[in-house]
Amino acid sequence: MADESPPAPEPADGNVGPARNPVGVFWGGRAWEFLSLVRARSPLVQCITNFVSMDLVANTLLAAGASPAMVHSIHEIEGFTPRCDALYVNVGTLSESWLPSMRAAASAAVGAGRPWVLDPVAVSASDFRMDACLGLVALRPTVIRGNPSEILALSSACRFSDSRGVDSSHESMDAVGAAMSLAEASGATVAVSGAIDYVTDGKQVVGTHNGVAMMQKITATGCAVTALIAAFVAVDPSNTFEATLCALSIFGLAGELGMDLARGPASLRTNMIDSLYGLDEQTVASRVIVSQRR
Amino acid sequence: MADESPPAPEPADGNVGPARNPVGVFWGGRAWEFLSLVRARSPLVQCITNFVSMDLVANTLLAAGASPAMVHSIHEIEGFTPRCDALYVNVGTLSESWLPSMRAAASAAVGAGRPWVLDPVAVSASDFRMDACLGLVALRPTVIRGNPSEILALSSACRFSDSRGVDSSHESMDAVGAAMSLAEASGATVAVSGAIDYVTDGKQVVGTHNGVAMMQKITATGCAVTALIAAFVAVDPSNTFEATLCALSIFGLAGELGMDLARGPASLRTNMIDSLYGLDEQTVASRVIVSQRR
Amino acid sequence: MADESPPAPEPADGNVGPARNPVGVFWGGRAWEFLSLVRARSPLVQCITNFVSMDLVANTLLAAGASPAMVHSIHEIEGFTPRCDALYVNVGTLSESWLPSMRAAASAAVGAGRPWVLDPVAVSASDFRMDACLGLVALRPTVIRGNPSEILALSSACRFSDSRGVDSSHESMDAVGAAMSLAEASGATVAVSGAIDYVTDGKQVVGTHNGVAMMQKITATGCAVTALIAAFVAVDPSNTFEATLCALSIFGLAGELGMDLARGPASLRTNMIDSLYGLDEQTVASRVIVSQRR
Repeated sequence: MADESPPAPEPADGNVGPARNPVGVFWGGRAWEFLSLVRARSPLVQCITNFVSMDLVANTLLAAGASPAMVHSIHEIEGFTPRCDALYVNVGTLSESWLPSMRAAASAAVGAGRPWVLDPVAVSASDFRMDACLGLVALRPTVIRGNPSEILALSSACRFSDSRGVDSSHESMDAVGAAMSLAEASGATVAVSGAIDYVTDGKQVVGTHNGVAMMQKITATGCAVTALIAAFVAVDPSNTFEATLCALSIFGLAGELGMDLARGPASLRTNMIDSLYGLDEQTVASRVIVSQRR
Repeated sequence: MADESPPAPEPADGNVGPARNPVGVFWGGRAWEFLSLVRARSPLVQCITNFVSMDLVANTLLAAGASPAMVHSIHEIEGFTPRCDALYVNVGTLSESWLPSMRAAASAAVGAGRPWVLDPVAVSASDFRMDACLGLVALRPTVIRGNPSEILALSSACRFSDSRGVDSSHESMDAVGAAMSLAEASGATVAVSGAIDYVTDGKQVVGTHNGVAMMQKITATGCAVTALIAAFVAVDPSNTFEATLCALSIFGLAGELGMDLARGPASLRTNMIDSLYGLDEQTVASRVIVSQRR
Repeated sequence: MADESPPAPEPADGNVGPARNPVGVFWGGRAWEFLSLVRARSPLVQCITNFVSMDLVANTLLAAGASPAMVHSIHEIEGFTPRCDALYVNVGTLSESWLPSMRAAASAAVGAGRPWVLDPVAVSASDFRMDACLGLVALRPTVIRGNPSEILALSSACRFSDSRGVDSSHESMDAVGAAMSLAEASGATVAVSGAIDYVTDGKQVVGTHNGVAMMQKITATGCAVTALIAAFVAVDPSNTFEATLCALSIFGLAGELGMDLARGPASLRTNMIDSLYGLDEQTVASRVIVSQRR
């Protein structure tokens, strides 16, 4: 079903502002299709992720209808990873002892024809982390999601970016060029999070406007949405680009709905997960906001 | 006091439906006795558990009145484990580096006459995990709790089950036979979680009906209730069977109460812990639902 | 600005009860200054902390306006630690593999002139843990915070205390002498948590009365407030004593405010973080309660 969806209508030229119609209508319906597939199929998503994020990642996947599996021992990769519907690798609390499992799992996923998603958390924190991420990128992730600094750093290190330097003050728009270069060179769909989340396959760039700023005050929301991308890609691997964009929209929308009752970041976290669990078609269809660029 | 409680009244024959009277009245009072003992004595429960569950496990034990201690270094087992009132071992994020501590702690607990409880999470995910769990079962856990798939797989691997195979679609009733075989062979009290949680010592089987389905949408609730079993067993090691059943009932009841105000799995988690903390005698006595089988 | 604050008015002699004026007025304003600085500068705090605490530690730092970085690989210390504004080391789930990173990070922080804060969780649980903590104390932490048992044990092991023995029944007042000895010998500001949190530099002792008892029923609140101390020290390293006291007051106040809507420890946790995020000047100025001793 998902494969037969019509392509998104293309605006005549250049950037368009947030629009619910016709682009918005298309993406709202598409996002609902993905979420419904995840709920129906409950894809098994192996997560090799950082310690800080494990609770939120697992609860995000469960609330969306997926099945998380935090399995990271090198002794379990060969047998377990091919049985999963997708793999999620996150280097947030990287250590030498976990890296071989990440590599082995990525290879096993690729070998089994399963999608895998990389979150290069704080990739520029050290040479150790950058080298690890470059090695993982070489294993051909299906999707890479990061914040602007991470995408700029990773793209630059791959020698594909325009080397504008790396720091945390970059807004997501600044990193779109780097994301496109990274996507083109790596073959991955690349997502850059920010006030607008952009997704690119190296050619087209589409942005989702869903989300609220306070989500950044909750630890591991970036990790959680990347896990959600893995679940969405798992149910329709041939539409990686759309799956990535829809996961970002859905998660952002859950944050927006959660914000209604929030008194701060901790209640927002609770409400966001509750909202993700309870999302219905009408809300998704009417509130997903997507705009296309170039 | 707990040791002098009267035995549970036996129904004349076969299965009985959920009953609060006389079986229900007995178990409601018994559950309250266990919870009161945990609150009064605050047993120290060493937890060697998976990364995902640590927060919820610790907060569950604290809310129940127990004292959690997440101590896992091999260098601390010999001195620390015997000072604890119970040990909890959970293989959810098993790795080669943690397994020796699990084994050493189990041996130390047994050597010191302390109860210990095993949660064989995803035991069939790999040979590594199965071998580890079989090795742990050989160290004579006081209680083993798992979902139907886990109990079926473990029992089958111990060659005690009827080898009906293993998958996640088994309902808890299907695994009761496997649980009985596992209990008989291992000497452990075995609990199988499901819509009804069954507890068996290999001869009798008793089920508790407390709980709500949405608890399965919260990560680590299974891990948390197993930790609670450890706390309950800690305060009355000579009544393992009753302690296990009462812990399952109390946790399920906390979930039921939490459901009253829940808008989804994240608020349920919050409310469940709040409810566990605030449980009073009348609520426990009137709402614990237990039924006996054979 | 912070450096030019007037010294706290000294009571004429001996202990004074909780007072908002003049001591209270001074500390309320001072606490607000620190919190405002953290919000404005968003100090980067590297955390090498236990698994149980990572979620709450990160969310506490984010809610206060700081930037947490859970980086613990030995391969990242040399390059990363000197770029941080403060380091937080917590031995709660200590293992042999993490200890070298803790030591290297402490040395790197000191070498770079950065403050670092130690939380000697359960220091008396084993010789392994005690030896590790003594080695860390020798690396000259800026602040040490613990509960009475931990401070008594650590001080005693340093041979600076009066060796009154160690157990968990000590109230915070009992540990003040030990804290003073530890502070004098180690050069650290030492904080002892309890119904009243005391801070000492070896000479003066000041206590903060903010906080509620139920915070002890939430796992990792002690870890979280120690992380907050690191963030406060980060923005004004020359006023370690005041930063420590203000962080304890602010966290306790967040707990008090959170208690207004709490139905148990889990909702208190949520409300506490929300309250920390939303603290305003008037609330801080009027509700911080500090008393000086000797």
